[in-house]
Amino acid sequence: MSEVYAARRTRLRERCEAAGSEAALVSGGANVRYLAGGAPAGAALLLGPAQEDLLLCPGDPFTGTPGDRPAEGLRVLVLPAPDADPAVAGAERAAEAGAGSLAVEEHHLTVARHRALGSVAPRLRLDDLGTAVEQQRVVKDDEEISSLRIAAEIADQALGELLESILVGRTERHLALELERRLVDHGAGGAAFPTSVGTGPNSGLAGHVPSDRRVEEGDFLSVCLGADYRGYRSEVARTFVIGTTPADWQIELYEQVFAAQRAGREALAPGTAYRDVDRAARVVLEAAGHGERLGPRIGHGVGLENDEDPRLTPSAMGKLDACVPVTVDPGVHLPGRGGVRIDDTLVVRPEADGGPELLTITTKELLAL
Amino acid sequence: MSEVYAARRTRLRERCEAAGSEAALVSGGANVRYLAGGAPAGAALLLGPAQEDLLLCPGDPFTGTPGDRPAEGLRVLVLPAPDADPAVAGAERAAEAGAGSLAVEEHHLTVARHRALGSVAPRLRLDDLGTAVEQQRVVKDDEEISSLRIAAEIADQALGELLESILVGRTERHLALELERRLVDHGAGGAAFPTSVGTGPNSGLAGHVPSDRRVEEGDFLSVCLGADYRGYRSEVARTFVIGTTPADWQIELYEQVFAAQRAGREALAPGTAYRDVDRAARVVLEAAGHGERLGPRIGHGVGLENDEDPRLTPSAMGKLDACVPVTVDPGVHLPGRGGVRIDDTLVVRPEADGGPELLTITTKELLAL
Repeated sequence: MSEVYAARRTRLRERCEAAGSEAALVSGGANVRYLAGGAPAGAALLLGPAQEDLLLCPGDPFTGTPGDRPAEGLRVLVLPAPDADPAVAGAERAAEAGAGSLAVEEHHLTVARHRALGSVAPRLRLDDLGTAVEQQRVVKDDEEISSLRIAAEIADQALGELLESILVGRTERHLALELERRLVDHGAGGAAFPTSVGTGPNSGLAGHVPSDRRVEEGDFLSVCLGADYRGYRSEVARTFVIGTTPADWQIELYEQVFAAQRAGREALAPGTAYRDVDRAARVVLEAAGHGERLGPRIGHGVGLENDEDPRLTPSAMGKLDACVPVTVDPGVHLPGRGGVRIDDTLVVRPEADGGPELLTITTKELLAL
Repeated sequence: MSEVYAARRTRLRERCEAAGSEAALVSGGANVRYLAGGAPAGAALLLGPAQEDLLLCPGDPFTGTPGDRPAEGLRVLVLPAPDADPAVAGAERAAEAGAGSLAVEEHHLTVARHRALGSVAPRLRLDDLGTAVEQQRVVKDDEEISSLRIAAEIADQALGELLESILVGRTERHLALELERRLVDHGAGGAAFPTSVGTGPNSGLAGHVPSDRRVEEGDFLSVCLGADYRGYRSEVARTFVIGTTPADWQIELYEQVFAAQRAGREALAPGTAYRDVDRAARVVLEAAGHGERLGPRIGHGVGLENDEDPRLTPSAMGKLDACVPVTVDPGVHLPGRGGVRIDDTLVVRPEADGGPELLTITTKELLAL
């Protein structure tokens, strides 16, 4: 496995050299893990000058969780002063090693930290690495995709078990905690993001923080959860009706959101523009008169972060590639009444391979529970 | 209540004007909440020019959780473009309102965002607000302290219930989830930070991420948890022995850490230097030969963040004031064997008022469970 990470670092180093930077300092958490194989929070990774890679850690990465452990073959420096800034130490190292320029992640470093880098290494020219690592992370390898597949399976299992339990009378908060416990029971390292459970008027709200409202007969119940498996994060959302048969407005709204989500899924193909996926789902809901109620995007990439590139928005630049895992998660919320959210994690695949691979297989029929 | 927040903003505005900035833009999450009374994640607060305060929100703060709702009387602008940066919008507003200079939080804004601010308002001089708001947050008012008191009570209750249950054979991970569920049962908004449970060789490790290791007879079991109540975060850690009577090394190590923690607590008084509190606890463990095993600090402030100013470290500058809530949390971990961590949340009080107020009252005897 360690060759995988070495190859990722080589690719980034080559890109930096081509851009005229002699060394690169990666400080974004997920970016460091992607290139190092594992790292404790706050670690920074120095690439170059020359072939020298060094992971600078605030603490010993081998006493922490497995996810903290860097791949073999990567040199590790545990900073003696526990409150030292690994990024600053990395800039110092780069200067000592004779680098004249260092590319840093300006979208991650604060102005204050960037200034500290400059003051410990005044002769070092600080360039902007930009989102080079994020871009490198967009297309996943088989190892990454199989971790995501397991993460999706775990979330499906937790959701499936919840549906078999009694829901009426329980609070959003307890249902959310129950789901997170089940994620762990099934082997997740934890929840990929805070589990969202919305009932009645709270249903269909994106990122709704679970409240003490109890599930009632006739409610919409929308659930959004994901599992973290080896650092890779799945996402799934479903909406159900509680108890009796759904009301007409519930059936209608559900069908509209479902149609939009299907259109988005069907638009996933290598070469399709990000914005066209957004468009495919958005037009369906605009036609239904919900245009103003839609969020900024219809989906996003998933991987080491729950929400990463690509972003499927009306203004996004770029085209999908094969082996890019994304969510398709449109939702509509009607103030005071509630709403519907349907969300899957899929992997973009060419038509020849059967088209998009659905990782979250929980049914999308409107179930009355 | 809304006057409290208005008064906090006035105090900050006066400080900025004294420092020569016509307006201030606060973007740090806890800082915005402190000054606005509540705000959705990502919101930014513009103070001035003149008396104009404006909370810029990425979404409608009144559809979210209670913690998202700003205090009455504060003007709110929900940004039309959902992916717009509230800080950038704030800088634009400040320039439109005729401000010539704007103090921003350079320790929070990334280099990229800071540049974006500069480019939308090229004539605006960007100053550094520094940690002005963090400093303002150090001394708490009665309202804040009573929220912390409840947060501490909740954590004590969750911990107390766990101690009454069967522990042997259960995994660290499940004990941690159980504790977090109980926090919510007792009225917490959630856990103040990820609950840490360490057994056997994992016991006593600061911030240990719960693993699948099961509790065994003779283990040390160390637990660190806290509750979030109305945004205020308590912290408590205790260490127990499982089953039989403790081994001699366990009793000895426990007594050493307990003596250090008591020394730290007893050092808490208005006017005491931060570093002297650290010193009081540290010398005890250095004398016991554990100097190298100690973390960077013996305690830290708590409030809207789990870990905020003041930091009780060997090099910290500054003195304690009355009404400053802090933790005292020394711990020692012996590689391969395990260790002890004892942590309380207390409020600094003058001798005349009976000295430090202990908020986390769970017993600190070495219990054999």
